[in-house]
Amino acid sequence: MSVLVVGSVALDTVKTPFGFQREVLGGSATYFSMAASFFTKVKVVAVIGTDFDENHFKLFKKRGVDWSGIERKPGKSFRWEGEYRDDINTAITKKTSLNVFREFDPVLPGKYRGSRTVFLANIDPDLQMKVLGQIRLPKLVVCDTMNFWIENKSDSLRKMISHVDILLMNDGEVRQFTGEANLFKAVRAVLKLGPRTVVVKRGEFGAMMFHGNTIFAVPAFPLDRAVDPTGAGDSFAGGFVGYLSGKKALTVDHLRQAVVFGSVMASFAVQGFSIDSFRTLTHEKIRERYRQFKELTSFRSL
Amino acid sequence: MSVLVVGSVALDTVKTPFGFQREVLGGSATYFSMAASFFTKVKVVAVIGTDFDENHFKLFKKRGVDWSGIERKPGKSFRWEGEYRDDINTAITKKTSLNVFREFDPVLPGKYRGSRTVFLANIDPDLQMKVLGQIRLPKLVVCDTMNFWIENKSDSLRKMISHVDILLMNDGEVRQFTGEANLFKAVRAVLKLGPRTVVVKRGEFGAMMFHGNTIFAVPAFPLDRAVDPTGAGDSFAGGFVGYLSGKKALTVDHLRQAVVFGSVMASFAVQGFSIDSFRTLTHEKIRERYRQFKELTSFRSL
Repeated sequence: MSVLVVGSVALDTVKTPFGFQREVLGGSATYFSMAASFFTKVKVVAVIGTDFDENHFKLFKKRGVDWSGIERKPGKSFRWEGEYRDDINTAITKKTSLNVFREFDPVLPGKYRGSRTVFLANIDPDLQMKVLGQIRLPKLVVCDTMNFWIENKSDSLRKMISHVDILLMNDGEVRQFTGEANLFKAVRAVLKLGPRTVVVKRGEFGAMMFHGNTIFAVPAFPLDRAVDPTGAGDSFAGGFVGYLSGKKALTVDHLRQAVVFGSVMASFAVQGFSIDSFRTLTHEKIRERYRQFKELTSFRSL
Repeated sequence: MSVLVVGSVALDTVKTPFGFQREVLGGSATYFSMAASFFTKVKVVAVIGTDFDENHFKLFKKRGVDWSGIERKPGKSFRWEGEYRDDINTAITKKTSLNVFREFDPVLPGKYRGSRTVFLANIDPDLQMKVLGQIRLPKLVVCDTMNFWIENKSDSLRKMISHVDILLMNDGEVRQFTGEANLFKAVRAVLKLGPRTVVVKRGEFGAMMFHGNTIFAVPAFPLDRAVDPTGAGDSFAGGFVGYLSGKKALTVDHLRQAVVFGSVMASFAVQGFSIDSFRTLTHEKIRERYRQFKELTSFRSL
């Protein structure tokens, strides 16, 4: 029971209505690993530059995350600068410096190649395929993507999606990718490409899962303030995939619960900058919030 | 067990991606009455012009709605023209002709003055207050409003809200009314004005209810096509208030169920133009969709 994640480790400079943080730890693989580490053992594949301070990995160590698959390359680390204004759902990207990430060519350590559960975070779909090709017998493959690849690598994305079990996408991306304004038609078009399950992330409006004839919807956890929405989607993925990786069979019940655990982890992530919320997080707090989700959504049968 | 509604009866000209309809029956009191009639006896207070064809009321009659409180005045009936494009959540108003509605001065028939449950649909808050003043001993008062009154009659609105038990508002309106970007802070500010309960309508993202320390959220019913979103909010109100009017005490459980019934009725309303969906609707279909909402939102406890 473990999860392999391939994605980015970045230094983020973020401004939100609640503060400003310079070059703090970020990246899809980072958020995913922190969230998933509460459910399973995590192995990370990513790349950092020579300027990267290993102190950033203290929390990886504390949470038992295996980061021996993070390669250090000559050059600067991947950096992202962004801002959130009143519409806390939408990041305004100010600067993206790919740096060493530009040449990222993931080669999996031998001990990673037997991974059964794989999360392909949002990177070039050709790289996602390349990673997948190095894994012997994956049992559960989950992937994420973003508008940039939809616009620039649509064919590669289509091919990659045909090899995954579960696709995570946000609302607008599903519509953009399929050219279908109605969400349910859009999802059906995506399901035809191969995945058995599609999870649509809707930011402050929660998430929906489509699996066979099942549709499951959960609202986002009501928060007084979303301090920093960066990493919410990857933290969702961490809770979702982390929970599923411990299950022998992917039943609809498990998938529903996984969506709730994903929502729980996303709600924690946005309560602090960077991965701060995960520093003091406990299993008991996670269970407590799961129960609050139950309370939030329950109503009597007829 | 009955509900009094005061609001508009209108002739709507509507264009959506699924068709065009000219001068069909609309208005807040109309949609509310049709939806509520599946739960309770409804009495309507509204105004129509001399041009209004009584054939429009056939369905009122069939559904047992008491429309003796609809006054006929010299002049033309209230007309609204609007369009929905790809963003099915947002109506583009092309023309509003208030006509006889401009002079609307609701005087309740004596037999209406003992009403226990009252729905003040979206009209001038001064008129809402005037109606409320004519009712002897209201037990449950629910109201709706819109951005126009927030912008132009904020003080009257504030006063009116202090007299109601339950306030329905949409997402953007709660934020606009309170000047608070965070929904939960905005709702708390509204609760301080007097209502015990606030229901926030979020269109295709469902609805949330705030009552004491309880927050309840339900997604919208997933539909392949929203043929015409006109009247969704008032149909929601019809299901919500209609269901509650039959309950002796307003428990949190009943409020939660009422939000689901509201969502059920809104989902039917948008499946057809005007009140078409209500023509063939049955109690069995309503119960079936309620069960589907349960299926849509259920997940296992830990």
